[in-house]
Amino acid sequence: MAYEIGNKQLVNYYEEEILRQFAADFLRALAANEEEATIIADGLMTASLWWHPGQGQGLEKLFRYHRRVRNGGIVPQAQMVWLTDGPSYSLLDAAKGFGYVAAHRAMQRAIEKAQQSGVALVGVRNSNHFGIAGYHAWQAAKAGLIGWSFTNAKAEMAPWGSAQVVLGTNPWGIAIPRRDAAPILLDMALTMSGKGMMRWYMNEGRTMPENWALTPDGHTTSDPAKSMDGPLLPIGEYKGYGLSLVTDVLSGVMTGALFAGAVFQDDQNYDVGHIMLAIRPDAFLSRRQFEERLETFIEEVKSTTPIDPRYPVRLPGEVEFERMQKRRRYGIPVSRETVEGLRSRADELNVPFPL
Amino acid sequence: MAYEIGNKQLVNYYEEEILRQFAADFLRALAANEEEATIIADGLMTASLWWHPGQGQGLEKLFRYHRRVRNGGIVPQAQMVWLTDGPSYSLLDAAKGFGYVAAHRAMQRAIEKAQQSGVALVGVRNSNHFGIAGYHAWQAAKAGLIGWSFTNAKAEMAPWGSAQVVLGTNPWGIAIPRRDAAPILLDMALTMSGKGMMRWYMNEGRTMPENWALTPDGHTTSDPAKSMDGPLLPIGEYKGYGLSLVTDVLSGVMTGALFAGAVFQDDQNYDVGHIMLAIRPDAFLSRRQFEERLETFIEEVKSTTPIDPRYPVRLPGEVEFERMQKRRRYGIPVSRETVEGLRSRADELNVPFPL
Repeated sequence: MAYEIGNKQLVNYYEEEILRQFAADFLRALAANEEEATIIADGLMTASLWWHPGQGQGLEKLFRYHRRVRNGGIVPQAQMVWLTDGPSYSLLDAAKGFGYVAAHRAMQRAIEKAQQSGVALVGVRNSNHFGIAGYHAWQAAKAGLIGWSFTNAKAEMAPWGSAQVVLGTNPWGIAIPRRDAAPILLDMALTMSGKGMMRWYMNEGRTMPENWALTPDGHTTSDPAKSMDGPLLPIGEYKGYGLSLVTDVLSGVMTGALFAGAVFQDDQNYDVGHIMLAIRPDAFLSRRQFEERLETFIEEVKSTTPIDPRYPVRLPGEVEFERMQKRRRYGIPVSRETVEGLRSRADELNVPFPL
Repeated sequence: MAYEIGNKQLVNYYEEEILRQFAADFLRALAANEEEATIIADGLMTASLWWHPGQGQGLEKLFRYHRRVRNGGIVPQAQMVWLTDGPSYSLLDAAKGFGYVAAHRAMQRAIEKAQQSGVALVGVRNSNHFGIAGYHAWQAAKAGLIGWSFTNAKAEMAPWGSAQVVLGTNPWGIAIPRRDAAPILLDMALTMSGKGMMRWYMNEGRTMPENWALTPDGHTTSDPAKSMDGPLLPIGEYKGYGLSLVTDVLSGVMTGALFAGAVFQDDQNYDVGHIMLAIRPDAFLSRRQFEERLETFIEEVKSTTPIDPRYPVRLPGEVEFERMQKRRRYGIPVSRETVEGLRSRADELNVPFPL
């Protein structure tokens, strides 16, 4: 496995189709319709195929959907409404619907508009956690466009110089389509790491790098337990703080969604905001010219000498797409804790449990 | 002075108008026309008012213009040509003209188009160093829009896992307009620091943080001298590498400019590429709603408790705009080395030298 899972005692491996089917069944049992169940299950499977289970973006998300649908914080089959519609922009009110579905529809509209006008920006308000940012950017690359997805999120980062959390990790997904190859795909939070990963380190008894998070009173630490209630640290110190702030202005302030510390605080009204940006890569050159230049560029980047010859230079997303292929062959790791949690909820919802 | 200049022996202080006048005279002596001299001098003064002289973005840039105009790498009064023009995009061939001028014109066009269509993307090829990224983003904010400027640059960063430089620091400027206040203004390279700042530390005999740059063979160091020929390190490790790569795809690969290691290598053909993105912040809400929400957001961010009570939380750009005010009152620091270098070139060009 290219990605180091750590203590193998903590995970089981399953076939993709079994997990996908289970996720869709589970979502339908929560009253998701066919389109919603398909989009969300596809997002969860993408995260499961790309990422570390400690990042909590795979089937772990079903716990949250279960809880939030119960609470009324997520409304299955929500009647989403397009509010404004300009030549290169549009705004979707997601009506408390599933974030994956709202962001997917928004990116589809951004793609359609950018195909006409070269670039398009689609906002979403009144949404929920949209899953992994790269999934939405990838939709644009599948259609031959450059995609860039932004979202605000629950406050876990402090402004630079403070330990009081008021901004989210506000992840970005950026995808650039390639000819005959998986896209360049950058999926990144604006923090050095995340609470899910810190929890995984803590459970494994490992120390973490000191630039991941502070203690609640603002001290550096390498002990994940000491900073579980402290702020995550931004990439590039004050720079990542600035990027997170800008992201919240775009996805929260500008769209009419909640912003800053209010996001995800009221479990009846999450009101998360997203922005989907799509760009036609052949706005300036022909498609063929763009594609050829991109391959020349990639070749130059990838032919640089690695510091450690065992680890050749990779493009953003390359490890994830390779891992995706391997996991499709050898199975997808799911933490045992997740499996047990899903079993009890599946019983409760009368969903067949194949794990 | 809010910004710590370090060893005061290294700088003199001058009045803004004297420096601005000198910069414009110097540029006219290099055959810049009135519009070009005005734009570039304004950019250099902005950098001088905002930044540390060690960052080399103030009058230090005149050495480079002098050299490059002589070499033919920069062509004063270049006949720039608009190549493509769509509803929300446009491409400028800068014809080897001054980068400040090309980027300024491109952002003006992005502003005009975004006012119509909500969002606009303008590319530039065949350009030069565009100065400080924040200057161009600020033009959009002055017009009431959100501005985001991107550029590629000389290779100084390696792909993550390599020490072989092939990507630039590829700085971004992002500006968000505010009602009755200076904009939020984020101006940042995608590296932790830059060679100019490392040189300053070296001259002052200081050590630098270990996450600034590697030695040429890929080892960490806190000695700026040991890494002057090594790669600068990206923000957020592989994340900043990804952002730099994406920036070069947008500003270099997509526009038809040079990209990767070729940028700034041939002194007859710099062919730098830029992208200017402008967004109408009131695409989704009224201007008044956007402005009020933004102020509420800012208040929440700024009211967080600082870790050290002496340093209250600041917005991106806040320190720079305060420093601008102070320097307008108390003078602008210019390194003595720069003053001496300018004196000899001014003599040569018959430019009056008031410093």
